Amino acid sequence: MGAVSDGFAVDQNFDGVTCVVTGGLGFIGSNTAIALVAAGARVRVIDALIPQHGGDRRNLDCIVTSASDDVRERVSITIASIADDEATRSVLAGADFVFNIAGQVSHLESMKDPLHDSEINVRSQLVFLEAMRNTCPSAVVVHTSTRQVYGRPRYMPVDEAHPTEPRDINGIDKLAGEQYHRLYGLVHGMRTVALRLTNVYGPRQNLAQQGLGFLPVFVRRALRGEALEVFGDGLQRRDCLHVDDVVGVLLLAARAMERGNVEPGSVFNVGGQEAISLRSIAETMAELGGAGSTVEFTPWPPELAAIDIGDFSTDATAVTNALGWTPRLPFRDGMQMTLDFYRRHPWYLPST
Amino acid sequence: MGAVSDGFAVDQNFDGVTCVVTGGLGFIGSNTAIALVAAGARVRVIDALIPQHGGDRRNLDCIVTSASDDVRERVSITIASIADDEATRSVLAGADFVFNIAGQVSHLESMKDPLHDSEINVRSQLVFLEAMRNTCPSAVVVHTSTRQVYGRPRYMPVDEAHPTEPRDINGIDKLAGEQYHRLYGLVHGMRTVALRLTNVYGPRQNLAQQGLGFLPVFVRRALRGEALEVFGDGLQRRDCLHVDDVVGVLLLAARAMERGNVEPGSVFNVGGQEAISLRSIAETMAELGGAGSTVEFTPWPPELAAIDIGDFSTDATAVTNALGWTPRLPFRDGMQMTLDFYRRHPWYLPST
Repeated sequence: MGAVSDGFAVDQNFDGVTCVVTGGLGFIGSNTAIALVAAGARVRVIDALIPQHGGDRRNLDCIVTSASDDVRERVSITIASIADDEATRSVLAGADFVFNIAGQVSHLESMKDPLHDSEINVRSQLVFLEAMRNTCPSAVVVHTSTRQVYGRPRYMPVDEAHPTEPRDINGIDKLAGEQYHRLYGLVHGMRTVALRLTNVYGPRQNLAQQGLGFLPVFVRRALRGEALEVFGDGLQRRDCLHVDDVVGVLLLAARAMERGNVEPGSVFNVGGQEAISLRSIAETMAELGGAGSTVEFTPWPPELAAIDIGDFSTDATAVTNALGWTPRLPFRDGMQMTLDFYRRHPWYLPST
Repeated sequence: MGAVSDGFAVDQNFDGVTCVVTGGLGFIGSNTAIALVAAGARVRVIDALIPQHGGDRRNLDCIVTSASDDVRERVSITIASIADDEATRSVLAGADFVFNIAGQVSHLESMKDPLHDSEINVRSQLVFLEAMRNTCPSAVVVHTSTRQVYGRPRYMPVDEAHPTEPRDINGIDKLAGEQYHRLYGLVHGMRTVALRLTNVYGPRQNLAQQGLGFLPVFVRRALRGEALEVFGDGLQRRDCLHVDDVVGVLLLAARAMERGNVEPGSVFNVGGQEAISLRSIAETMAELGGAGSTVEFTPWPPELAAIDIGDFSTDATAVTNALGWTPRLPFRDGMQMTLDFYRRHPWYLPST
C-alpha cells in the first residue's frame, strides 16, 4: 500500500469494493482516490478537467506510474462531465460507493460567471443524482458541500442548525446541490450524506490557478519567499483542515452509511478544532516556508470585501458523535507536511 | 379604473411608472398586472406560456378588450422566457419596477421532472437577474418566493429565521432563485425584495391543470358538485391567502423599497392570520360551492406523502412591521368572492 501512499494513515479497509470518485483529478478528489486505492478499493475516477477548476492528471501520477500492476489495474480514469449521461452510465454501473467531489469552488469566479457556477454546481449535480438513481440506486453517496452555505456567521462556532444564507453565487449553488443530495436521501431512499467542509489545504492542490482560495496562494508564496498578502487587519479567523483529515472523514462517513449508522440525507459540518486568524496563518506559513517571506497587509479589494464572510469557526460535534471523527493534524503540523510535499513535487509550483 | 378592476381595492398610485410583470399571464402575475394598470402604471407583461405552468392569455382579457384606449395602450404583452436575453432587453429597458413572478410551481411535477424545474426556477432566474443588472440596475425588483423553502416546520408559526430545508425539488430551486435575488441586493446593490408566499387562491387560477396545488382542484370540484378529496385525516393545517391580499403586499413592498424603507436583499414571509385544517377548508368550500359537494377522505398517494410538509402556519410579523400589511380577507369571505368570480367566468372550468 505504501506504493501509492504519500503520508496517508489509512486505517479502513475497502478491499474488493468499487468506488467512484468525481472530480478525482482535483485536490480533494485525487487525495480521496489515492486513499481508496491504498485501502484496497477498485477506483473509477471521473473528472471533466474543466480549465480553472484545479484538476490535473499528474495528481494521480503516483497511481498511474505505480510499479504495482495491482494498483494500476484497480484504477480507471474517465475524462467527462458528471452531467454526461453516457459517460456516467458505465462509470456508475455496479458502484458500491460514490464520492461526489466534483465542482466549481471559486467564490470570486462564481460572481464573475454565475451561470457557469450554476451549471456545474446545480444542474450537473441534479443530472448526476438522476443518473445514480437510475444506475446505482443502492450505492452509498458521499457529497462534499462547504461551510460557504452558511454565509456570514450569526453565531460561532457554527453548527448545522445555523441559518444557510450564502454570501456568493458559489454558496447558493453548492447549497442547492447539497439539498438535492439530502432530498434524494429523504424521498428516494438513496444513501446520501453531505459534508460541509471548511478551508482545506494539503498536497495536490493547484498552486498556479487563481480563485482556489487563499491557502494555495500562501503555499506558493511561502515556498518562493514572496510576501504573503493579508487583506485588512488579518484578524478574521478561519478554520483550516488538512486534506488527510478530510479524506479520513469521507471514508468514515461512507462506511457508517453502509452500516446503517447514519440516516440517509444527513448533513454534517466538518471542521478543525482551531479557528486561526489569517494573520497568524500567514505568519506561520512565512516561517515554515523558510524562504524569507514576509506578511503584508493590504486593503480589501472591493469585489472580495463584498462577498467576505468575516470570522468562521465550525462546531463539528455532530460528526464527532456520529462517526467518532476529529481532525488529527494541528495546523502547524499539517502545513509543515504540506510544504514538504510541494518541495518534493516542485512541478506544482508555477514558473514565474 | 373600474374598467379593469374585478373587485380589487387598489389604494396605491402607480401613475406614470413603468412596471414589468414576469409570468404576467399566470395566476398571481395577471392579478398583479391588472392591479398595476388600475393603479395607473404602464405594464409590460412577459410570459413564456409554458404548458402546464398555468398561464393563459385570457387572464388579461379584461385589459386587452377594455373599452378604454388608455388602458389598452398602457399594456404590452411579450410571449417569451425570462431567460431570453433578446426579449427581456426591450421589456426591461427603462423599467421602474419589476414584479418577478414567473416560475414552475408544481411540487409533484418538480419531482417527476427535476431538470425542468431547475431550468425554470434556478437558471432562468439567474439569467434574468443578470439581464436586470445590465438593463435596469436601479429598478425595484419584487420576487415571489414560497413557504415551500422551509420544508417541514420544526416549530410554528414559521418565521424567517426558521431553517430552510425544502422537501421537494421545487422548494430547493425556489430557494436558490430567492437567494440569487437576495445576493444581488446585498452584493450588487440592486433593490430586490423577496416574499415567501403561503397557499394562494383567488381569481384567474388555472382550474383545469393538475399540479397547481389543492386549492384550484377544490374550487373546480366545489363548483361542479363533485367530491372534495382530502388525504389522510385532513387535520394538517394550511395558511391560505387570497390573491388580492398578495397583490396588495407586492405593491406595498415595491413602494417601500423605492422609498428606502426596506433593505435591498430583504426576505419576508407573507401569510394569512388563520391556519385552517384541510378538512375545514374542504367543508367550507363544499358548502360555499352550493352544488352538493361532499368531503371524502382517501389514503395519501405515496408520491405525495413523501414530499408533504405536515402542518404549516406563518409568522408574518416582520412584513407587518416593515410594510404595515396584514391580510384583509378571511378565508370564508375570500373563497366566496373567488367562487363568485368563477361563476361569472365559466370558461375557467374545464369541460368534463
